[in-house]
Amino acid sequence: MDILLLPPLFGLAGLVVAFIIYRIIVSYPAGEGQVAEIAALIHKGAMVFMRREYSILGLFLLVVTVLLAIGFGGWRTPVAFVVGALCSATAGLIGMHTATKANVRTTVAAKNEGAATALNVAFYGGSVMGLAVAAMGLLGLGALYLWFGGDPHHAEAIHGFGMGASTVALFSRVGGGIFTKSADVGADLVGKIEAGIPEDDPRNPGVIADNVGDNVGDVAGMGSDIFESYCGSIIATIAIAATMTMLQWQQLAPEREALMFAPLALASVGLICSILGIIIVRLMSANAPAMALRSGTIGATLILIGAAYFLLRWQGISAAVWWCVMFGAVGGIFIGLVTEYYTGGKPVRLIAKGGETGPATVMIAGLATGMESVVVPVLVIAGIIFATAAVLPEGCGVYGVGMAAVGMLSTVGITMAIDAYGPVADNAGGIAEMAGLGEDTRKITDGLDEVGNTTAAIGKGFAIGAAGLAALAIIAAFIATVERHVPGFALRLDDPRVLTGMFIGGLFPFLVSAITMRAVGDAAFDMIKEIRRQFKEIPGLMEGTAKPDSDRCVDIATQAALRKMILPGVLAVASPVVVGFVLGPQVLGGMLGGALISCVLLALTMANAGGAWDNAKKYVEKGNFGGKGSDVHKAVVVGDTVGDPFKDTSGPAMNILINVMAIVSLVIAPLLA
Amino acid sequence: MDILLLPPLFGLAGLVVAFIIYRIIVSYPAGEGQVAEIAALIHKGAMVFMRREYSILGLFLLVVTVLLAIGFGGWRTPVAFVVGALCSATAGLIGMHTATKANVRTTVAAKNEGAATALNVAFYGGSVMGLAVAAMGLLGLGALYLWFGGDPHHAEAIHGFGMGASTVALFSRVGGGIFTKSADVGADLVGKIEAGIPEDDPRNPGVIADNVGDNVGDVAGMGSDIFESYCGSIIATIAIAATMTMLQWQQLAPEREALMFAPLALASVGLICSILGIIIVRLMSANAPAMALRSGTIGATLILIGAAYFLLRWQGISAAVWWCVMFGAVGGIFIGLVTEYYTGGKPVRLIAKGGETGPATVMIAGLATGMESVVVPVLVIAGIIFATAAVLPEGCGVYGVGMAAVGMLSTVGITMAIDAYGPVADNAGGIAEMAGLGEDTRKITDGLDEVGNTTAAIGKGFAIGAAGLAALAIIAAFIATVERHVPGFALRLDDPRVLTGMFIGGLFPFLVSAITMRAVGDAAFDMIKEIRRQFKEIPGLMEGTAKPDSDRCVDIATQAALRKMILPGVLAVASPVVVGFVLGPQVLGGMLGGALISCVLLALTMANAGGAWDNAKKYVEKGNFGGKGSDVHKAVVVGDTVGDPFKDTSGPAMNILINVMAIVSLVIAPLLA
Repeated sequence: MDILLLPPLFGLAGLVVAFIIYRIIVSYPAGEGQVAEIAALIHKGAMVFMRREYSILGLFLLVVTVLLAIGFGGWRTPVAFVVGALCSATAGLIGMHTATKANVRTTVAAKNEGAATALNVAFYGGSVMGLAVAAMGLLGLGALYLWFGGDPHHAEAIHGFGMGASTVALFSRVGGGIFTKSADVGADLVGKIEAGIPEDDPRNPGVIADNVGDNVGDVAGMGSDIFESYCGSIIATIAIAATMTMLQWQQLAPEREALMFAPLALASVGLICSILGIIIVRLMSANAPAMALRSGTIGATLILIGAAYFLLRWQGISAAVWWCVMFGAVGGIFIGLVTEYYTGGKPVRLIAKGGETGPATVMIAGLATGMESVVVPVLVIAGIIFATAAVLPEGCGVYGVGMAAVGMLSTVGITMAIDAYGPVADNAGGIAEMAGLGEDTRKITDGLDEVGNTTAAIGKGFAIGAAGLAALAIIAAFIATVERHVPGFALRLDDPRVLTGMFIGGLFPFLVSAITMRAVGDAAFDMIKEIRRQFKEIPGLMEGTAKPDSDRCVDIATQAALRKMILPGVLAVASPVVVGFVLGPQVLGGMLGGALISCVLLALTMANAGGAWDNAKKYVEKGNFGGKGSDVHKAVVVGDTVGDPFKDTSGPAMNILINVMAIVSLVIAPLLA
Repeated sequence: MDILLLPPLFGLAGLVVAFIIYRIIVSYPAGEGQVAEIAALIHKGAMVFMRREYSILGLFLLVVTVLLAIGFGGWRTPVAFVVGALCSATAGLIGMHTATKANVRTTVAAKNEGAATALNVAFYGGSVMGLAVAAMGLLGLGALYLWFGGDPHHAEAIHGFGMGASTVALFSRVGGGIFTKSADVGADLVGKIEAGIPEDDPRNPGVIADNVGDNVGDVAGMGSDIFESYCGSIIATIAIAATMTMLQWQQLAPEREALMFAPLALASVGLICSILGIIIVRLMSANAPAMALRSGTIGATLILIGAAYFLLRWQGISAAVWWCVMFGAVGGIFIGLVTEYYTGGKPVRLIAKGGETGPATVMIAGLATGMESVVVPVLVIAGIIFATAAVLPEGCGVYGVGMAAVGMLSTVGITMAIDAYGPVADNAGGIAEMAGLGEDTRKITDGLDEVGNTTAAIGKGFAIGAAGLAALAIIAAFIATVERHVPGFALRLDDPRVLTGMFIGGLFPFLVSAITMRAVGDAAFDMIKEIRRQFKEIPGLMEGTAKPDSDRCVDIATQAALRKMILPGVLAVASPVVVGFVLGPQVLGGMLGGALISCVLLALTMANAGGAWDNAKKYVEKGNFGGKGSDVHKAVVVGDTVGDPFKDTSGPAMNILINVMAIVSLVIAPLLA
């Protein structure tokens, strides 16, 4: 059998496993009465949003496909682009559909069967998303590679797959992020403004939108984010291997093809490791949830590191490459652990303490925490780059960066599963609250949710680190590709064109953050006005005898998300094209460098400040510093509200921004000659 | 007469003019009774702080001097280092001493003579600082250049001057910034926490410390900041000219010496232009203050642009270099105007409107404003880099960046004068309030203060742009210097060592921001406890019959500033040395690139967000959205409090951080071979 057949076959197998898990989930009871009704509203809201989002996205993709067909004068790049976009969209749909089935079943399991079963159902929900991401990536990329990726004349066309994936990711993540946080911030603030309406109250018309947001933002958005990093790192590593000189690749493997195929092979093994990781979590589910989830991730990573050694040696690839894989895999876990400290350790208690002197000191402490939290993860990334260059022969360093990124991302099935578990558990709690299922059920779902918050923070740290390395690999591939087409091309830091580009690139993340922050602020404002209107105009709503019109709130969030995702999307896709063709590849190269640094730093700052503020609020709500309702609580709620768009809208958009800019540059690189 | 004698002679002449202005200031009446008493407290507090700050600084400088002497095995670099440090410290002392004389005389003039005279006195106060900066720079650098700067064997030693200036600037700016904001935040928050104690009330023990802070932070700190950019840009341009190949410099001038001397000559002409600008402001002082100040800046810049043309042509230098000077000079004004928009225009009203839904939306709007505000200034910087490279012959681009920076900074006398005018006017208002001088006086000083806030924001934008360009020129000089010592040295963006460095460099600004934000937060916390204690333990304080112990508060701010400035200072000075010698010049070069981008972006974000929050508060206090005491006002006060360390502590530290890192690298460049 041709070894090239393995990745798509593994992808298909992954989908089968995901489908089996899906069947298990739907075999659990879905509840009835109010529980089922609320779940149906959330499911419907999420699906309606996705359909409308994908319609706009479809139009955008169509335009880009036509432009690609004209630009390249061939069918391969546009086809790869469409396949990449479809694979990403499919993974997102599968994951979100499953999540909106799993949430209510988790609630019911928590009520009827207890914590262990509820954990299983929620985790199964996340697992389908995780496996769908890994499987669709392997299936799509593997099939394209089998088709024309190995042919040196057409290898570059495969970059289109990454561009398709990144474009979908950008719109999903930005749109989903704006949706979820405008609903969340709006619903939260109403409680503060309209006296007597508690947060997360079923009478609050914004609560359904908030729960829909968890699914479209934290499940589908996050999934597409990880999907594009995953595919991006594989594509970049293939491209780097394809552009190495014979002198270079001969130091690493007997055949160039082995180096090109290695990232796909590693990702295939990673899928198996992820499935093993899922089994580990299942076996450990009688223990504390945090413990079970962590065992799954670390177990899968350890198995991968071991298996990678034999895989690479079997392919005749130098052991130095294995070291790179290991640096990446271990680095990813390390970044996650640092994130856990900053969003759950001492800094969180210091932020809560800042509440004693009001919201201003909560803000100062949180911003300082976010900025400080970049240090170790960035040093880890820098360390990985330096170490891979150190273990590989001269001139092969960037291949090592690519393999490190693939190493970090190949267990995406389990890391994404744990990540997507969070919003499922969160939703389960929301349903329990809205349906009034009582203290005991709520306690179980709260416990699951709390673990989910930590895993979500870890997942975000991991996603940023992985996206940074993936982008770096793509940028390296871009430089190598341009070099192949433009002899003598070099990006030197003392070249004014490169410096110009670095400054331009550096400002994009700030601009996109500003646009998305403002979008959330504006949409939340509209949401508040609508909620206020409903309380005024719907008789009996406050007393609980009438139902809120939650569809209107879902609609406001949808409108805001769809309208405000366009500008950042167009900016990200168009800027490399304009800069590349108008100012030249040197400016473009500098721009990618500047954007990379700026994106990684801002993403870490915003994700961790947001996570820390969120947990500082939870810490006070547990009864510290006066507990719920105290002045300190009011102060930390302000921090949490600012942290919402930080951690779930603007921050996550950074990962994708840099990857979109890098992959678009890589795609157009052959045309820049 | 030797033309090389001109810069130090112009420097001496500038000092004479500054002294004449100082004599004019002290000829105004200094007030009596309570007014004189308060002024004496402020003067004493400022001088005590400076003495203690300079003692610690002196120790640090001594250690560095010894290390430089050992490292270089010669006396020139350490001597230049000491001279640079002394010149900076002297300029700071002159400026601050004068400012603490001018503040009370402005108050008295506002009371007895009216707005025009008060404006004159306050502006004279700022002018002495501005002229001191320009004159000490020309005197010190000019003398060293005359002594050994022109000698190609010893030219590199002059870099030590920049390092001395930058080291003093770092400690002054960070120390002063922590001092001023811990006092300001502490004094402000007490009003919110202890019911019944209004802001800026004379009974508040923290108010004197707050006024001292304006002088040590915004006068002395800002002066040393601008001083190091000013000298850094001149030194870098000299170094670039010194390292150009014959093929390169022959395209620009008949003699290399002409190119090396050009930045000093331009700065000398700039000093004259600044004095003319000061005269313009004086002549226009009957008009609106904002108008008078703006005419001075723009007038001085236009005269400089005209004069530069004849100066450069007289020296036989290509007209292309003049274009670079013009790009820099015009770019500086443009950045200032953009800053004015973001800290005074529509964004400010949007932030205030955000207060309708509480402090969280004020925070979100302000952060978005800060992040958006980077776009135009960074595009201007990128445009200057690109344009200078476009007008100059191939390979000469970085000389153009240097001359653009010098062009932007050579009218430092007037820009710094307008900048330092702000805190003098602010202090004048504080004294009027504390001494209870009545509504009319207060109205005049409020008017002056308001203009001062805008000019301070513009000055900050200008300082960041100038510092960015200066740092860029220094980095270019570093690369050129290493190239001269290490044949084949190049900083390529696809070199893993350069990438490692870029990530490491990028994190420093975030780390230093975090440290300084936390320092302010912690010190403000101590300040609040002390103020609370005094209200509790001093009988009659609340009733106004007893005096607060303001010395204790000055002492707390001093302690915090001195303790917390050490770590950022050591980090900035030591990191290039450690990275350069341990990881090599490629990593160091990448580090400077990453730090530059990251510093400029963070500095602009923090300065403009802070300025916008400050003015949003002022906008509400004028009666908009409910005015003072409303819920909206409470919300914008939170924004202003967070903005304080943003704009006056962490943000300004960024300018210096990158310049210190760059100049230290330039100094050690010859040793990295």
